[in-house]
Amino acid sequence: MAEVREIIAAELKLTKVEPWKRLKGGCSSNNWAFKTEIGEIFAKIDSDKHGRDLLLGEMKSLEMLQSAESVRVPRPIKIIFSQNTAILITEYIKFKGLEVFQGELGQHLAMLHLRNLQLLKENADQAVKQFGFYVNTCCGKIPVDNQWNEDWINFYCKQRLKPQVEMAAKMSGNREVETLWSQLEPKIKQLFHGVNVQPSLLHGDLWSGNAGETETGPVIFDPASFYGHHEFDLAITRMFGGFGREFYQRYHQLIPREVGFEERKSLYELFHYLNHWNHFGGAYEEQSLKIMRRLVANN
Amino acid sequence: MAEVREIIAAELKLTKVEPWKRLKGGCSSNNWAFKTEIGEIFAKIDSDKHGRDLLLGEMKSLEMLQSAESVRVPRPIKIIFSQNTAILITEYIKFKGLEVFQGELGQHLAMLHLRNLQLLKENADQAVKQFGFYVNTCCGKIPVDNQWNEDWINFYCKQRLKPQVEMAAKMSGNREVETLWSQLEPKIKQLFHGVNVQPSLLHGDLWSGNAGETETGPVIFDPASFYGHHEFDLAITRMFGGFGREFYQRYHQLIPREVGFEERKSLYELFHYLNHWNHFGGAYEEQSLKIMRRLVANN
Repeated sequence: MAEVREIIAAELKLTKVEPWKRLKGGCSSNNWAFKTEIGEIFAKIDSDKHGRDLLLGEMKSLEMLQSAESVRVPRPIKIIFSQNTAILITEYIKFKGLEVFQGELGQHLAMLHLRNLQLLKENADQAVKQFGFYVNTCCGKIPVDNQWNEDWINFYCKQRLKPQVEMAAKMSGNREVETLWSQLEPKIKQLFHGVNVQPSLLHGDLWSGNAGETETGPVIFDPASFYGHHEFDLAITRMFGGFGREFYQRYHQLIPREVGFEERKSLYELFHYLNHWNHFGGAYEEQSLKIMRRLVANN
Repeated sequence: MAEVREIIAAELKLTKVEPWKRLKGGCSSNNWAFKTEIGEIFAKIDSDKHGRDLLLGEMKSLEMLQSAESVRVPRPIKIIFSQNTAILITEYIKFKGLEVFQGELGQHLAMLHLRNLQLLKENADQAVKQFGFYVNTCCGKIPVDNQWNEDWINFYCKQRLKPQVEMAAKMSGNREVETLWSQLEPKIKQLFHGVNVQPSLLHGDLWSGNAGETETGPVIFDPASFYGHHEFDLAITRMFGGFGREFYQRYHQLIPREVGFEERKSLYELFHYLNHWNHFGGAYEEQSLKIMRRLVANN
């Protein structure tokens, strides 16, 4: 840790950077808490080839989520690039699994999703009017294309689903996924019949493993933010369990469920199943194909 | 999850296998809790090329640790191999970070380490008399060689340090690590002067991220067990923070510290620094070389 400590001390102009504890991380990143004279800080250290993009995307996501002042995220402090190593520094938050603050998180997430929609109505020159983000981000370790796009359906098809379909087909040699995609793509528009999608700032990867709580309230982390349809964030919360009834009650008090959500939910889940297939293989291949077959048959 | 659920249901002869929540895992493994008629179960699902070896090593480690009845681990239920996917099923334990049961864990770990030493004295035909394990295990995602060996120093040099040194040299192109290793290896014997190393069953990767507690006591998980020198387990607990003073007090009440532990601690840390270098690169390269230079100079 000597090198990393020295880099952090120099970049943050600190005299004390004391390794305090290591925390579980991903396969390429390496998470540490340090004690310093400005308090406890958390560092994600990544020497992988995508590490720089991954952490830069996360830094920008944290900055935008923090400035939205709706749901708590670790306060970003600095991103440092040193040779082949990237280091993202944030405040250190001691948290545990979501329990008593389920409802609050639902409410805070809805407030986040509503914020840009309100700006569009009240103060349109400060609002974001397209879908995308300022930088690319990574969902897991696979980068996604956040180039700004005026059309949500086009963004979601071309910049989310299609690259995952192509990667899955290439890696697995499975041809059905491409056939299904060519049948599904032209049908996607009708899933949005009567829905006016406007850009909301999203967490982007809000499964239950990326949410927790402190003694004072809920907190979310490991974001891969972008401006997109708020239902995208909501769909993944339902995929892997872990969010309770109160979460949805409080969310839907502020953002009621729209007609056709169940089908769009499957479409949004599809991105995550494909992304899991590309990360983990195995059972997610069949699950991805099953959703695609069902969406093609029903629409 | 459909496929995985069906496989688990068939293999465990269950009618209900309901996905309950996904939990954070490594980069190739994918962790789920399911609700079933035999209670909540936890599944590690791995489709990576080393997944089978990794999970088989973990299954055998959990079995041995459980039968030692010294420190709680998740009760192993079954390992399933299905095409390219391996699934390790254990009981599901809801835990949080180690806090009030620091001391108990120290005591339980010492009891684990003493167990085979007591058998050697009292019931030698039931004791393990060599260093190694029944299967290979993985430390992180890198497999280690657990072939039985009568000599601890030979085992630790040839089956732990040397393969890591070779991998680091090959991957990084760093030549100093090989030069340092050729100087260090002949000096290792003197670090054990006056110490009679006997095989203890070890957790094998006991950093603070692999320990926690329930409401009733401490629990350790993600083991990469083998029979080795108990100081190997103790050394890693000191590396990344997270274990408190009570942990060491209670441990050393049962197993007093032996002369020369500080130097051997560095030697045992070296394995983990090299292993981290091979996983993460970056700052661990310099840290590994620094320890080797110091050990060569001091001995």
